[in-house]
Amino acid sequence: MPEGRTLFERACRGERGGHAPVWIMRQAGRYLPEYRKLREEVDFLTATKTPEVAARITLQPMERYPLDAAILFSDIMTPLEGMGVGLDFDPGPVLERPIRSAEDARSLRPLDPEEGTPFVLEAIRLTRAELSPDRALIGFAGAPFTLFCYLVQGGGSKDFMEARSFLRLETEAATALLELLGDSMVRYLAAQARAGADAVMLFDSWVGLLGPDSYRRFVLPLMRRVVGEVRAATHVPIIYFANGGATLLRDVKEVGADVVGVDWTLPLSRAVAELGPDAVVQGNLDPAALFAPRDELDRAIQGVLEEGATARAHVFNLGHGIHRTTDPDQVAFLVDRVHEHSAR
Amino acid sequence: MPEGRTLFERACRGERGGHAPVWIMRQAGRYLPEYRKLREEVDFLTATKTPEVAARITLQPMERYPLDAAILFSDIMTPLEGMGVGLDFDPGPVLERPIRSAEDARSLRPLDPEEGTPFVLEAIRLTRAELSPDRALIGFAGAPFTLFCYLVQGGGSKDFMEARSFLRLETEAATALLELLGDSMVRYLAAQARAGADAVMLFDSWVGLLGPDSYRRFVLPLMRRVVGEVRAATHVPIIYFANGGATLLRDVKEVGADVVGVDWTLPLSRAVAELGPDAVVQGNLDPAALFAPRDELDRAIQGVLEEGATARAHVFNLGHGIHRTTDPDQVAFLVDRVHEHSAR
Repeated sequence: MPEGRTLFERACRGERGGHAPVWIMRQAGRYLPEYRKLREEVDFLTATKTPEVAARITLQPMERYPLDAAILFSDIMTPLEGMGVGLDFDPGPVLERPIRSAEDARSLRPLDPEEGTPFVLEAIRLTRAELSPDRALIGFAGAPFTLFCYLVQGGGSKDFMEARSFLRLETEAATALLELLGDSMVRYLAAQARAGADAVMLFDSWVGLLGPDSYRRFVLPLMRRVVGEVRAATHVPIIYFANGGATLLRDVKEVGADVVGVDWTLPLSRAVAELGPDAVVQGNLDPAALFAPRDELDRAIQGVLEEGATARAHVFNLGHGIHRTTDPDQVAFLVDRVHEHSAR
Repeated sequence: MPEGRTLFERACRGERGGHAPVWIMRQAGRYLPEYRKLREEVDFLTATKTPEVAARITLQPMERYPLDAAILFSDIMTPLEGMGVGLDFDPGPVLERPIRSAEDARSLRPLDPEEGTPFVLEAIRLTRAELSPDRALIGFAGAPFTLFCYLVQGGGSKDFMEARSFLRLETEAATALLELLGDSMVRYLAAQARAGADAVMLFDSWVGLLGPDSYRRFVLPLMRRVVGEVRAATHVPIIYFANGGATLLRDVKEVGADVVGVDWTLPLSRAVAELGPDAVVQGNLDPAALFAPRDELDRAIQGVLEEGATARAHVFNLGHGIHRTTDPDQVAFLVDRVHEHSAR
C-alpha cells in the first residue's frame, strides 16, 4: 500500500490539507447499541479472539459515522496470553497470577505474534479488506510500563502501588520485565502493520503515575528503543498516548513518535509548547463535553480545533476513551462538526 | 494563640528559618500498626465521630515521629451528614442516595458546624490540648468540586462521569450545589479554626478531572470566594491541594491560598514557575519512593528539598497520601532526613 494514502495517515506525517481527520478512542464499544447487542451473545474475551467478530465490532462505528480511521477492537492485555500470562476480564483484566518476583518475571516468554495472536492479525486482514481505501485502520499495543502495571498489580488499581514499589525494590527484575514487554510489543506492532494496519498506537494508560524523574529513569530509554525498532520494522506512523502525562511531555518528545496523543487536561497549544512546533498532536476534547447541550459542545469542538491549529498537524480525538453512557447522536454531531469546521 | 507560633505556621506564612517543616498526608492511618489495632475495635465512621478516638488516632503518628504538624483524623465526607446526606463507608464512601437532579440538590441544608459536626470540633479541642505548643494542628475540608463529585456519583469512581455530565447538563443545579458546599465548608473550616486548628486545608482530590477551561468556569470563582471568606473569618493559614492539577496551577494561583499543595507528578520548581516566586508550596515526594532502598529514598528526599528551595517557603510532604503498605520505619527515616538535610 502506498504511504500516506488516507487523510489520517497524511496528518500523522505532518501534512495539513482537507479537514482534520477524526476518530474516537473506544469508538467501537459500549456506547453503541449495536455493540451491546452483539455482546449479549459473545463475551469480551471471545470477541477479541474471534477475527470475524473483532472485525465486525471494529467496523460498527465506521458504518454509523464518517470517521477517518478505525481502530482494531481488541485489548492491550490480549497479547499477554501469548507470553504465558493467564488472563480473564471481570470486566477489567484479572490475572491468574501477578508477577511479584524476578522468578515470576522469568516465567514469561517473548511474544511470537503469528503464534500467540494469529486471531488479531487475521482480524486486521479482515477489517482492512472491508474498510474503504480512504479510511485508515489503526493497530495498537499497550506501552510496556502500562502492561507492567497490570502484570505486577494483578489487575486494575487506582494507584498500582505494587507495581510502583516493585520498580523501586526489585529494579533489576522490573527492568528485565519492561524490556521483555518492550521487545514483545515491537514484534506485535510490526506484525499488525504487516497484516495491514495503516498506523500503530502505543497506549501508556498509567504512565501518569510517574513523575518526570521516574519516567526518565524507567521508561524513556525503553520507549525510545521501542519506537525506533517499530519504525525500523515498518513504515506506518507511530502514535504514542501518554495518558495523564501532562508533566512528562518534554520527555515524551524524546520518545520520537510521529504523533503524540494528549489527554483533555492540557490545552493542545500548551502541549505544542512542550513538544515543539513540529509536533503532530492527537486529541483532546473532554469526554464529558459530549454530555453538554449542542451549542456548548460545538464551542468546545471549535476550541480544540483552534488549539490544534498551533501544531504542525492535528488528528481530532477525545482526550480519553468515550464514556459508555454517551449518546451516539452526540458522536454523529461531533464528527460532522469537526469535518465542517476544519474544512473552512 | 499568637499567630505563627510554630515552625509549620511560619513556613505557611512564607518565612524560612530552622528546618523545613514536615508532615505526611494520611499520616494517621492504616500503615501504622497502632492504628490498625485500634480499628479492630472501632469502625471508621465511629472513629471519626468519637472525639476521644479521633484525637487518639490524630496523635498516634505524633508520638512515633517528630512531625511538625498533626492533621485531624477525619474524612472529607464527614460534614456531609450534617447537611442531610446519608453516608456509609465500605471502605470508600457510599451515599444512600446520589444527587441526580435540582430537586435532590435542594434537599440538602447548609452545614451548621456546631450542630452537625460537634464531635469534630471537640476532637480538635482535645487534640490541641494534648499536642505540644511547638507542633501545629491542621483542620481540613473537602473542596466543593470534590464533594460534588462524590455526591453526584454516589461514591468513589475512576472518572466521576455522572458528576462531570451533571455539571454540563444541569449547570444551574450543579452550580447551586457547588455554592452550597462552598458556603458550608467556609463555616466548617472557620469553626475548626475557632476550636483550635492552627491551619486549615482544602483537599480537591478530584479536580484533576477538569481541564483548565472547565476549572475556570466551574471551580475558580467559587474557590476564590471560599478562600476569601475563610480568611475573613479566621487568621489561620489556608492550604489548597489541587490533586492531579498540574495543568491548573496558573489558575490555582488565582485562588489565593497561603500554601499550594503539589502532587508528585510535577517538580516543585515547575510548580513555582506557574505559581510565581512568592508561592509557598507543600509536597511532593512520590509515595512510591518510600518503598525504595534507603540511599535512593535519601536522594529522592534531597531532590524534593532542592526543588522546594525555589519557592518562598516549603512545607515537606508526600505528593499524595501515604500508602497503607508503607513500612513505618521508612517514615521515621524520612522525617529525620528532612529535618537534617534542611537544617544545614
